[in-house]
Amino acid sequence: MSHVLILGGDGYLGWPTAMYFSARGYKVTVADNYFRRNACTEVDTGMLYPIPTLIERAKIWHELTGLEIKVVIGDLSNPEVMRQFFDGRVQYQWAINFNFTGLPETVIHYAEQPSAPYSLLDYKHADFTVMNNLRVTNNLLWAVRDFSRDTHIIKLGTMGEYGTPNIDIEEGWLEVEHKGRRDKFLFPRQASSLYHTSKIMDTDLMWFGVRIWDLRVTDLMQGPVYGVSTEESLMDARLKTIFNYDEIFGTIINRFVVQAVIGYPLTVYGGGGQTRGYINIRDTIQCVHAAEKCPPQKGEMKIFNQIMETFSVNQLAELTKKVGDQLGYDVRIKSISNLRKESESHYYNPQYHGLKKLGVVPNLLTEESLGSLFQMVDKYSANIRREVIYRGVSW
Amino acid sequence: MSHVLILGGDGYLGWPTAMYFSARGYKVTVADNYFRRNACTEVDTGMLYPIPTLIERAKIWHELTGLEIKVVIGDLSNPEVMRQFFDGRVQYQWAINFNFTGLPETVIHYAEQPSAPYSLLDYKHADFTVMNNLRVTNNLLWAVRDFSRDTHIIKLGTMGEYGTPNIDIEEGWLEVEHKGRRDKFLFPRQASSLYHTSKIMDTDLMWFGVRIWDLRVTDLMQGPVYGVSTEESLMDARLKTIFNYDEIFGTIINRFVVQAVIGYPLTVYGGGGQTRGYINIRDTIQCVHAAEKCPPQKGEMKIFNQIMETFSVNQLAELTKKVGDQLGYDVRIKSISNLRKESESHYYNPQYHGLKKLGVVPNLLTEESLGSLFQMVDKYSANIRREVIYRGVSW
Repeated sequence: MSHVLILGGDGYLGWPTAMYFSARGYKVTVADNYFRRNACTEVDTGMLYPIPTLIERAKIWHELTGLEIKVVIGDLSNPEVMRQFFDGRVQYQWAINFNFTGLPETVIHYAEQPSAPYSLLDYKHADFTVMNNLRVTNNLLWAVRDFSRDTHIIKLGTMGEYGTPNIDIEEGWLEVEHKGRRDKFLFPRQASSLYHTSKIMDTDLMWFGVRIWDLRVTDLMQGPVYGVSTEESLMDARLKTIFNYDEIFGTIINRFVVQAVIGYPLTVYGGGGQTRGYINIRDTIQCVHAAEKCPPQKGEMKIFNQIMETFSVNQLAELTKKVGDQLGYDVRIKSISNLRKESESHYYNPQYHGLKKLGVVPNLLTEESLGSLFQMVDKYSANIRREVIYRGVSW
Repeated sequence: MSHVLILGGDGYLGWPTAMYFSARGYKVTVADNYFRRNACTEVDTGMLYPIPTLIERAKIWHELTGLEIKVVIGDLSNPEVMRQFFDGRVQYQWAINFNFTGLPETVIHYAEQPSAPYSLLDYKHADFTVMNNLRVTNNLLWAVRDFSRDTHIIKLGTMGEYGTPNIDIEEGWLEVEHKGRRDKFLFPRQASSLYHTSKIMDTDLMWFGVRIWDLRVTDLMQGPVYGVSTEESLMDARLKTIFNYDEIFGTIINRFVVQAVIGYPLTVYGGGGQTRGYINIRDTIQCVHAAEKCPPQKGEMKIFNQIMETFSVNQLAELTKKVGDQLGYDVRIKSISNLRKESESHYYNPQYHGLKKLGVVPNLLTEESLGSLFQMVDKYSANIRREVIYRGVSW
């Protein structure tokens, strides 16, 4: 029975991932410092509904399924907190069996500050982002190096690392011919937020660890995720993952649906031609599972572009309007001046075949899937705080 | 009168740079947290001679020249310590005139943990290196962004960021043609130590700041530095910069000369074909001055490869032996197994024209210049602790 350690197990992706692996017979441990919740409180963003603590969630999961997800609340930017999962000193805050599970075969690393606007609120939030994200990654590499070099690290990267280059975006790597000689390098990266830049720096660190210590790393270059329901979360409303709808922590499709439901115009920055790759939360977890089943060799870093389709902001706004209007909402689209330094019209041709080759079958963004997101949001519409949606974070 | 703020002003390069600019009429402020001295104490490395505190040095400099170098002792990884130099809250620990000098036209950023072996001693030193180097750079970018966007940041990078690629190393950038389309990117970087990787991550951060906030940055990709004397340090023995001769903080040429003087065999790792670009400390300062006189436009990052010639380890050992033997020392060369994961035989063709075009006239490594380094070291040979040279740090 394989053991999966999930860092950032309380987050938007972390908790559904934990239930998914638990339901499929894996031993699962989750670690989190409640950063996401605390930050939502700090910057007064909106959660669509309250969520139980991680320990409550694990108890509910156990009551419903008989399965155990062991819980540790701790700050992984402290190397000693990270190392307890590998040297056996770990003290679980919640478990059925408090004995050390043993070394994880797989670590899924989500334990980062995940918001571009949060990273650019001011110098303090920037400092936190750089410090937290890079220390956690570095601490993880060293713990695996020191105690468990066969462990497979699955790291959540981001398509945003690549930016919007004028050449096709390959899956992680680029063969270069220069003055008659050849070599293969990491695909060039230049991101348009500090958060995304911290992910580039993570990639630099991991590629160092892989080359020098023969670690096994899979880097998943994910696009913005949307959706909320997974097979497991549908078992009980209390198992739903966190859902933000503000500009700091709410990703665009989820946020647009909330705006549509309460009659708040969909905010398109500038020309709206900004094109990105998107993915349903169910596919994120499918992809992580596909990566888990197919670990790299020692000294190999696998990189996948984890998106299923591309849309411009205008396309997303129009699709949201179309579906919302059909459902009887009065959806308006409003263009506002772009608060971000980014291209509003650019070449964008990313490759993303690798995960599908491993068997991932995409859940695409359809009118139907968007419609069910509207229905879910509508149930909680009384909780929506209109005034926290627009934040005006500029860079 | 231009104001130069030197971060890391107590270090091997920082202090000679401070005297150099002071002697040429610049207003100079130095900041340091004594990391280098404290780390030398911590890991029990050897200093060839004791050096006065930064405040003592500034006082000696003032007595000799009448010039003022303002001194602040503080930890720049704390954003508040960094910001005091820009918002006027600064309290100088030593100055002639304690009034705020005002915003610096130029910041020279040396304030990093500079040793590859130190960064790889263990997980704690790795964590420190990542945290210190990236927080200082990020804090600097934010301080300049918030208070002084015209300030020119001159950042010490390293040739080690590039590693040893199979293509020619250009000066910072690479034009890529891919599937019929073109773009220009940062030259691919993949370093062979964690310290050098932290410098890649610095580059990522600075390139973000330049693109998003129109900052002015010059990144100097420097090779290993050797030598100790500069025009200013020759005025008084107490003004000499720190000189380490151990494997953690001693750079190769300086260390080889010490080993030769005390009859300690020159330690060549593995085949000795490892080739790098080298530079005399006098040329480092010339280069920094050339960069200072020629700031980038707003939103431009200039990158120079700051080396003057390339040598393999075997060539350096042989030259040291030749000069040492001529001076009457009995110099032996000893090959030991390579403790580092690196290529011992590789293609290496870096370009380094940019700084010479700006007027830098190199002081090359000659038998004569190496001979004068022997003479300096010989004066202090009684201080050399043979047992601290070899450290056996492996990766």
